[in-house]
Amino acid sequence: MPPTLSDLPTPCLLLDRPRMERNCRRLRQRIAGLGAALRPHLKTCKSLPAAEIMMAGGDGSATASTLREAEEFAAAGVRDLIYAVGISPQKLDRVARLRAAGADLAVILDSTEQAEALAARARGGEAPIPALIEIDADGHRAGIRAERRELLLAVARALPPGGLRGVLTHAGDSYHAHGTAALEQAAEQERAAAVSAAALLRSAGFACPVVSVGSTPTAHFARDLTGVTEVRAGVYCFFDLVMAGLGVCTLDDIACTVLATVIGHQPEKGPLGGWTLTDAGWMALSRDRGDGTQGYGLVCDAAGVPYENWLVAETSQEHGVLALRPGARQPPPRLAVGTRLRILPNHICATAAQFDSYYVLDGGAAVIAEWPRFRGW
Amino acid sequence: MPPTLSDLPTPCLLLDRPRMERNCRRLRQRIAGLGAALRPHLKTCKSLPAAEIMMAGGDGSATASTLREAEEFAAAGVRDLIYAVGISPQKLDRVARLRAAGADLAVILDSTEQAEALAARARGGEAPIPALIEIDADGHRAGIRAERRELLLAVARALPPGGLRGVLTHAGDSYHAHGTAALEQAAEQERAAAVSAAALLRSAGFACPVVSVGSTPTAHFARDLTGVTEVRAGVYCFFDLVMAGLGVCTLDDIACTVLATVIGHQPEKGPLGGWTLTDAGWMALSRDRGDGTQGYGLVCDAAGVPYENWLVAETSQEHGVLALRPGARQPPPRLAVGTRLRILPNHICATAAQFDSYYVLDGGAAVIAEWPRFRGW
Repeated sequence: MPPTLSDLPTPCLLLDRPRMERNCRRLRQRIAGLGAALRPHLKTCKSLPAAEIMMAGGDGSATASTLREAEEFAAAGVRDLIYAVGISPQKLDRVARLRAAGADLAVILDSTEQAEALAARARGGEAPIPALIEIDADGHRAGIRAERRELLLAVARALPPGGLRGVLTHAGDSYHAHGTAALEQAAEQERAAAVSAAALLRSAGFACPVVSVGSTPTAHFARDLTGVTEVRAGVYCFFDLVMAGLGVCTLDDIACTVLATVIGHQPEKGPLGGWTLTDAGWMALSRDRGDGTQGYGLVCDAAGVPYENWLVAETSQEHGVLALRPGARQPPPRLAVGTRLRILPNHICATAAQFDSYYVLDGGAAVIAEWPRFRGW
Repeated sequence: MPPTLSDLPTPCLLLDRPRMERNCRRLRQRIAGLGAALRPHLKTCKSLPAAEIMMAGGDGSATASTLREAEEFAAAGVRDLIYAVGISPQKLDRVARLRAAGADLAVILDSTEQAEALAARARGGEAPIPALIEIDADGHRAGIRAERRELLLAVARALPPGGLRGVLTHAGDSYHAHGTAALEQAAEQERAAAVSAAALLRSAGFACPVVSVGSTPTAHFARDLTGVTEVRAGVYCFFDLVMAGLGVCTLDDIACTVLATVIGHQPEKGPLGGWTLTDAGWMALSRDRGDGTQGYGLVCDAAGVPYENWLVAETSQEHGVLALRPGARQPPPRLAVGTRLRILPNHICATAAQFDSYYVLDGGAAVIAEWPRFRGW
């Protein structure tokens, strides 16, 4: 008999493998249908067996948010990697070591300062480290706006000869785009920014083979990827309440939950039905409040079925306070101390990072594997 | 030459050892002066060398927030431990194993259900696991209000004979008490609740030797601990912006910072001076927003000196967006890509949990040790 949920220590992180496989298959097929490659972002899973599912059926490419991820996945045989956070000069030695060990790791940048740091190393005799210029599609974070033609060209020219791999953008503001029209528009804006920047660079004589776009919301709502060579996305493998809130997935697509145990009650506190306390506080759930509407997560029974309007209303380090959503009328059940519950997370990148492994479920209550996660930089 | 800050990979967690020693010495002397013992809460540091500083000069007692902490510290020789989160029956096997291995580990509870679970084990022939009844001093979270005399006595009677170790309370609401008068009042309320519950239990014939109170704010503001045998506190070892905001410490007392590297600029975005981007996002800083006034942290130079009004205004997983505090007039400096900065954290329990080690500083820029942290449950 494999172990079941009742055998696990709490809090712990559960992963429903069939849901994850379904999520990964769906996006892979969608992006293939639009004529682009999928370059899974491994920052969400940080786990080799999970990455294998994300990369199944793909071309072997992946995205990393830390050099530690790049090192872990390169050691496991992933060869085509982008480190998708603006490079600082101090990190280039590690990049060069990974490249020397056989990984085709590219970096991203958005300034002549960074490009010159790459050029200086190449002048010192090192093979050029390939770079993508980060394009700012929506004002969200980093990158150069495609309209800033002179700066774009200056960065391309400052790179070592042959060092320009392409352009990359991330529609971070799509996390605030609600509804199909807004999400489709965010996707088109992301595509247009990357494609026009690539066109400019090509018109100036740069090859710019890669046009990389992506975020989980835009990847699921893009209607046209003309000119795009690849799409990056990460959170889609597991999904979470933020993605469900945007309409990118349903609650039934969310593959990860936190298993918790009831440790007490405060019937006189809070709204109707009082508080139920569990052993999953913010150390387990993370401090991520998501879109602000779901507390620290939605409460489900041990089978993963959500209770209506029962939230993790507050957390301490190792306490979760469950309470009815304000205004709701149907009181939550009174569950004995020791009862197991599952919590749907606001933002799985943050929640999963609180754990060292996934307990993998077969779709029911049987635990079929424990997959280690890594962390650090 | 020992390594210095410039040799460290970023983001990483720095610990100024002289500041930590000063913080620990100050509270130890304060509580001794009030006639109680200090039982350091090790949930903040989760590190053996750091715990040694917290426990120096004490009686060897400590508090844990997880059984993993209890196991780690017991293996290192800590014998007198309280697991200060309401116990669930499933965790009792681990508690019993630790006790059998020589640790005097006590649990806490606030229901007859939990007490009966302990009694059932004792009836089965196991030596009683000592328990403290959790008292609710301020409506914050768990525990029984001292006024609920019948429930208190029912829980004490449901415990196995000889199983009542004492009472314990935590003035969690003191994290929202601003100013000396409010903090002193929170401390007195905490003391009074615990002492009156102990008096009730003693009047009913229970020994109740331990009267345990504590939180970092109340520990620093209690004027009288009559009837209290011990004080628990954890975050005081490092302090953070939330504690500084309450007036429990100054910015100069904060012992931990996150070392970050500048990775880019967006001069046209945000307030005066634009945005500066670093490689310390929420994965490094945590998602904890503290009291809501400091963004994700305050920016300091590499020596740890705070810039006026420069905050981590936003974060992504691996990006920190630095911006001037709204309304401030003096623009932040324009720092080259690669410049090192330090970030003062909102809530060090959450921030430290994002890292696997502390880089320990001598008070200046020399790195004198790397202390491992552990995590998990």
